[in-house]
Amino acid sequence: MLTRTAIDRVVAAALEEDAPWGDLTSEALVPADATAQADLVAREPGVFSGGAVFAAAFALTDPFVDVRLSVTDGAVFAAGDVLAVVSGPARAVLTAERIGLNFVQRMSGIATLTSRYVAEVEHTGARIVDTRKTTPGLRMIERQAVRDGGGHNHRYSLSDAVMAKDNHLAVLTASGVPVTQALQSAIARLPHTTHVEVEVDRLDQIDAVLAAGVDTIMLDNFSLADLRTGVERIAGRAQVEASGGVTLETVRAIAETGVDVISVGALTHSAPALDLGLDVRITV
Amino acid sequence: MLTRTAIDRVVAAALEEDAPWGDLTSEALVPADATAQADLVAREPGVFSGGAVFAAAFALTDPFVDVRLSVTDGAVFAAGDVLAVVSGPARAVLTAERIGLNFVQRMSGIATLTSRYVAEVEHTGARIVDTRKTTPGLRMIERQAVRDGGGHNHRYSLSDAVMAKDNHLAVLTASGVPVTQALQSAIARLPHTTHVEVEVDRLDQIDAVLAAGVDTIMLDNFSLADLRTGVERIAGRAQVEASGGVTLETVRAIAETGVDVISVGALTHSAPALDLGLDVRITV
Amino acid sequence: MLTRTAIDRVVAAALEEDAPWGDLTSEALVPADATAQADLVAREPGVFSGGAVFAAAFALTDPFVDVRLSVTDGAVFAAGDVLAVVSGPARAVLTAERIGLNFVQRMSGIATLTSRYVAEVEHTGARIVDTRKTTPGLRMIERQAVRDGGGHNHRYSLSDAVMAKDNHLAVLTASGVPVTQALQSAIARLPHTTHVEVEVDRLDQIDAVLAAGVDTIMLDNFSLADLRTGVERIAGRAQVEASGGVTLETVRAIAETGVDVISVGALTHSAPALDLGLDVRITV
Amino acid sequence: MLTRTAIDRVVAAALEEDAPWGDLTSEALVPADATAQADLVAREPGVFSGGAVFAAAFALTDPFVDVRLSVTDGAVFAAGDVLAVVSGPARAVLTAERIGLNFVQRMSGIATLTSRYVAEVEHTGARIVDTRKTTPGLRMIERQAVRDGGGHNHRYSLSDAVMAKDNHLAVLTASGVPVTQALQSAIARLPHTTHVEVEVDRLDQIDAVLAAGVDTIMLDNFSLADLRTGVERIAGRAQVEASGGVTLETVRAIAETGVDVISVGALTHSAPALDLGLDVRITV
Amino acid sequence: MLTRTAIDRVVAAALEEDAPWGDLTSEALVPADATAQADLVAREPGVFSGGAVFAAAFALTDPFVDVRLSVTDGAVFAAGDVLAVVSGPARAVLTAERIGLNFVQRMSGIATLTSRYVAEVEHTGARIVDTRKTTPGLRMIERQAVRDGGGHNHRYSLSDAVMAKDNHLAVLTASGVPVTQALQSAIARLPHTTHVEVEVDRLDQIDAVLAAGVDTIMLDNFSLADLRTGVERIAGRAQVEASGGVTLETVRAIAETGVDVISVGALTHSAPALDLGLDVRITV
Amino acid sequence: MLTRTAIDRVVAAALEEDAPWGDLTSEALVPADATAQADLVAREPGVFSGGAVFAAAFALTDPFVDVRLSVTDGAVFAAGDVLAVVSGPARAVLTAERIGLNFVQRMSGIATLTSRYVAEVEHTGARIVDTRKTTPGLRMIERQAVRDGGGHNHRYSLSDAVMAKDNHLAVLTASGVPVTQALQSAIARLPHTTHVEVEVDRLDQIDAVLAAGVDTIMLDNFSLADLRTGVERIAGRAQVEASGGVTLETVRAIAETGVDVISVGALTHSAPALDLGLDVRITV
Repeated sequence: MLTRTAIDRVVAAALEEDAPWGDLTSEALVPADATAQADLVAREPGVFSGGAVFAAAFALTDPFVDVRLSVTDGAVFAAGDVLAVVSGPARAVLTAERIGLNFVQRMSGIATLTSRYVAEVEHTGARIVDTRKTTPGLRMIERQAVRDGGGHNHRYSLSDAVMAKDNHLAVLTASGVPVTQALQSAIARLPHTTHVEVEVDRLDQIDAVLAAGVDTIMLDNFSLADLRTGVERIAGRAQVEASGGVTLETVRAIAETGVDVISVGALTHSAPALDLGLDVRITV
Repeated sequence: MLTRTAIDRVVAAALEEDAPWGDLTSEALVPADATAQADLVAREPGVFSGGAVFAAAFALTDPFVDVRLSVTDGAVFAAGDVLAVVSGPARAVLTAERIGLNFVQRMSGIATLTSRYVAEVEHTGARIVDTRKTTPGLRMIERQAVRDGGGHNHRYSLSDAVMAKDNHLAVLTASGVPVTQALQSAIARLPHTTHVEVEVDRLDQIDAVLAAGVDTIMLDNFSLADLRTGVERIAGRAQVEASGGVTLETVRAIAETGVDVISVGALTHSAPALDLGLDVRITV
Repeated sequence: MLTRTAIDRVVAAALEEDAPWGDLTSEALVPADATAQADLVAREPGVFSGGAVFAAAFALTDPFVDVRLSVTDGAVFAAGDVLAVVSGPARAVLTAERIGLNFVQRMSGIATLTSRYVAEVEHTGARIVDTRKTTPGLRMIERQAVRDGGGHNHRYSLSDAVMAKDNHLAVLTASGVPVTQALQSAIARLPHTTHVEVEVDRLDQIDAVLAAGVDTIMLDNFSLADLRTGVERIAGRAQVEASGGVTLETVRAIAETGVDVISVGALTHSAPALDLGLDVRITV
Repeated sequence: MLTRTAIDRVVAAALEEDAPWGDLTSEALVPADATAQADLVAREPGVFSGGAVFAAAFALTDPFVDVRLSVTDGAVFAAGDVLAVVSGPARAVLTAERIGLNFVQRMSGIATLTSRYVAEVEHTGARIVDTRKTTPGLRMIERQAVRDGGGHNHRYSLSDAVMAKDNHLAVLTASGVPVTQALQSAIARLPHTTHVEVEVDRLDQIDAVLAAGVDTIMLDNFSLADLRTGVERIAGRAQVEASGGVTLETVRAIAETGVDVISVGALTHSAPALDLGLDVRITV
Repeated sequence: MLTRTAIDRVVAAALEEDAPWGDLTSEALVPADATAQADLVAREPGVFSGGAVFAAAFALTDPFVDVRLSVTDGAVFAAGDVLAVVSGPARAVLTAERIGLNFVQRMSGIATLTSRYVAEVEHTGARIVDTRKTTPGLRMIERQAVRDGGGHNHRYSLSDAVMAKDNHLAVLTASGVPVTQALQSAIARLPHTTHVEVEVDRLDQIDAVLAAGVDTIMLDNFSLADLRTGVERIAGRAQVEASGGVTLETVRAIAETGVDVISVGALTHSAPALDLGLDVRITV
Repeated sequence: MLTRTAIDRVVAAALEEDAPWGDLTSEALVPADATAQADLVAREPGVFSGGAVFAAAFALTDPFVDVRLSVTDGAVFAAGDVLAVVSGPARAVLTAERIGLNFVQRMSGIATLTSRYVAEVEHTGARIVDTRKTTPGLRMIERQAVRDGGGHNHRYSLSDAVMAKDNHLAVLTASGVPVTQALQSAIARLPHTTHVEVEVDRLDQIDAVLAAGVDTIMLDNFSLADLRTGVERIAGRAQVEASGGVTLETVRAIAETGVDVISVGALTHSAPALDLGLDVRITV
């Protein structure tokens, strides 16, 4: 669970960006004592994510706005469902509207897209994971949205797991040390809680990497046939991640190759915002 | 021009998110004294944006990394072009790589998509503008990318221009005051430098709004025929903005209706990151 | 309306500056369980501004302090009026007293001075506006005080409207392009919501600037006679702003020349703090 | 000496307030490759303060701007003197101009006003000190300006010295303990480095306060005659501070009563900004 | 009293360090609707400090957690005492547990160690004070803990009192000016509220320093005999601080030499965290 | 490697805490144009850590101070060795001295203590790791110090690895689900890169935990005999961490039981600051 202080920091930054010295339109057009009631309505079906973030947008604008959530993060909803009810001073409701919507649409969009990938791979044993291709500054909440959609998270950052790519392997073996041995001595320098994943581009790289005792091998841009061969060769001695060229059309076939993990950058970098609207009724 | 302090703030936040306590992989696999030279290479053609932001990612990781830009923001490039050369300590180059790429890919993606919209409306007199549907925290740099692509910016935030929508108009006229008069008294409360734009959904709303002396009228989700009628009715007495349902396929026809401004949320919320890569050569 | 998060940020910074590691005097001289009741009393008549900021000073020191405002921002009050009542732990009330007063005195001072300028120009059609000569870090709340005093705001910052001065015009025409044409091509690069104002020093500059279609022309340091001539020449084709040498003594005559806008740097840079006092009664 | 990190924090906040998403005017009207040279020129004589802050305004906008200071903080200058030379990219020079000027005008205004008070009391043995009535957020630099003008600083904040006023004394003696004894037990709770100052309103309060062993007694709003009597009665056993009603006209007479310290709120809250200008020459 | 905003800033930073993107363990192992009740129990006797900081750790994680303190800061408690009761959502209680404990253990450890030093010097007239050897970023709360333990604070920072050491004295007299005169002219430049303390290493330095009228003389690393001689020589004309080699074993003898102040770096840099535990009962 | 922006943030906070409005002593006693040269000298032998942090303390005070490091992080040095040379304006050198020393003494203290633990377990196959018992706000640099001393890091925070303790297990099995099955379903919810460690208090807990497929089992406060039995029972199917009661005296015996990891809270919470001094020579 994200801490309140972390959520508030992200939302406050967005508010100060969007209304640095107030909302000219509300102040000029809406009386100070007008009140508003607003329904957060789903214009399309989906999976909800971002309730706490949505509520914070209003609370940080004006603590007198009340937000009641009707659904919890991760819940499936239908078009037309009312997901939350917002009530309070009309100026504040209108000022915070776009920021609140922006976050909940983005997060629910990610959760919904994730849930579709997850549904595709049902019963295959493969899990759908995100990548580091998140929006700068929003990783924390985009990652939560992936979880709300039934997906799993990959490593959060450069600081919490190792992902060795071709550049790293090239360096590691530059002085002539065999890759297995070089990897082993690198692993010995890492925290014992650090997961080590190595990316390979060809089947013939697997054995040396596997021999080093890595935790996960990523098969990058492999054909379905090669994925199948890779899974067989690794034979449960490491987790197998498939990466590259994953779409809703291809993900089932990839999952059926027997890989454990399928990483999908699109979950965060290409999820369309979900169409949620705020139906506002103002009482003057 | 964005100030250095503003750019650094955005980039530092991204770096602290992506490498909060360092880059485990680089530290474990790359010797401290290894050096790297890296070319920022275009894998597809496009319009460049984000040079200063790209450079800041490396400078804030390690001031000993040197970044030389070969193209300026707004320049058109071809697939294969080298856009920048990065050199310095290998660990720092690898640590900052993703953040640097992330920003420049996103910004160049926006600039490139914008340039396509701009090309479509060439010689029509219509301009392509962005919307407030930007990424929370990144509006400043996404807006620059739109400009680098030849587009124009809409209002930056709730604080710098008025955009009156149906909710606002409903409130304004709730007490029975006619809309023209209500708008005029609202305008009288605004800074004299504040641009006033009003969104209308139907042709029959135009006259009352126009009579109030607004600066721009937004015709929201109008058919091409209605756009044409709207432009004729407004007859240069206000700028005309078309909004809603704008795609690369429809934008030319919309522009040819004679509108002045076409706002395209997709410029920032749906621009695919451009495929730029960093080809790294490490010397141990 | 300013967001709560923006107000809190400004007030918290002031509190941390004035009591970085607490209030030595209160802690040494006042028992921890003493309570205080304090009246915010007007020592002179004026226009109130800064209620929310005043309240935040106490809330951010100790959430157990209660602040009840008796007047709203923009209200006129007489000497002797009680404007707010503060009650709660005595140490916190004394710690926050100066910061709370400082803000509300400054803001009410600006609102009161503004209201005097506004009264002077009554029925002339001219509006009184502030300038960018605000206190670094406090522009947002000083601008609100101007509005509370019945004044209007000028552009907020370099980012939200254009103000072209002699330096800019000199650059613009350096290559021999006529000023009208040069301005027009600059305007074409700006957001359509950007107000363009140009400052001129002489009557003979007006025609070229006007021909470019600018929104406002600022007549800088013009004599009354020249202001009158300027207004006639512009003839409603742009707004006219008078600037320079504006005092309470001169402002009426300036307004009567027919200008639309009179900018007064003194509103924010020279408004004396209003004499408001906090009458504190402590119960031990 | 203020640390670079403290100066940069204050200046960066001002820049982000004044150019949150850039300088529209410079960007639209000035070519990216234009360069500027600018002289900081004194339009009136004064005492310089704020050189490092002035330079930071340009450096934080664009590190390629070069600022050479011709005078040091505290130096006296004549009208017409060139105080600094700025050179670099024209857009950046114009963007940072107002912020740089704003700080240096404010600080030099304070230093200059301070120097006039200091000159008035020459050879009297009294020192001129500031108060806590500084601008929220700018205390650090306003205090430096007072020092640059030859004045001295009072306590910086509530955290670094005690100032007991009537409210505090009333609390202290509420339970019937005599003021001397009550003060002594309060002093015993304070850090040994904490200066204790007590404000008195009448001569008959002095003895009890003095007996407690305080460091400074502030005679608040005393007549000249009473000041003289107060000084005699205290007789060097504590420092004597005069406060209230101090102007350039009265300060000499106050100093001649023999007080040690004269606090002048006007130094910071009423110093007019000094008239310094930036003469910019742009080369396109 | 520390302001709420200052406490929250310190605690929020700690929370974001320890749970930057949530608590994986709680989220995976504890149901979202589980509740917890937790007693803060003393595993050893001591002096309590940090109640507000402890409570903030939970409030900033989740405002629905309720914290009731059973003891006030500065209270003595026995092993087994329940010092506070925490109740609310189980995930939040577990997430904030370590941060809350960390602060309260550290602060109570400092208060407890301080109280032991204070007890040792009872009835001697010497006070126990801390030093600047605090933890970077935590000085404010570590200082409060010293006060809660019955100790006193030394100067807070470089900004609020003078401490002249050998380096400074060497500079001061480099040009041949006698130390007394040099110190006097330095003092004349300081705020009148600034306490001046000078550190001496040998008895023969005392006279010159004393003649300058300093407030405190620190006798650094003096033998008991020399301390006694120093106290006699200073004879009440300045406060005397003993520093260096102070332990619980030596402090009484040092106090009995007649010094006024004994500074003990160990209070903050070597106080062991007190053994306080959180006994958590979770209801699923 | 830590990013420059992360190091600067930590050091700037410390500087603003220790010299919020400058260094009164340096400013009063040291001429503005005095220069200093200072050697960072080891007063005792140890392992160096914190070079970049030490340098940043001076750079953020005044960029004109030059710091040359003679040793790299992780290097062993002898008493008397000069570890760095600092030169530049004397005021700045004296202002930053304590902060610079504070960090480098703390970090080198941790590195040195770590190196002693590491030496004790040489050739045993056990690694020494730190814990989350770090100083709030300084975890990042304390962790680097552990690495510089030859130790390894444990999980950084609650966000990057799972550590299930008795509370968690009690919750997990509250509804009657066997612990193995409950753990497995929790693991299934975690990122595939998340290391799962479970703490057990008794030998008979091991089998159920092991059967769940966890990565590490922590044997908490086990006797040497029980550690040996635990290692045998686990038999390489999970890593084994010993925790509790680890001292320099006991660590070798613990290591010889065959455990893989020994966590030592003392590395960060009880490492004495190393005695490093700054020998300053000032030239007036």
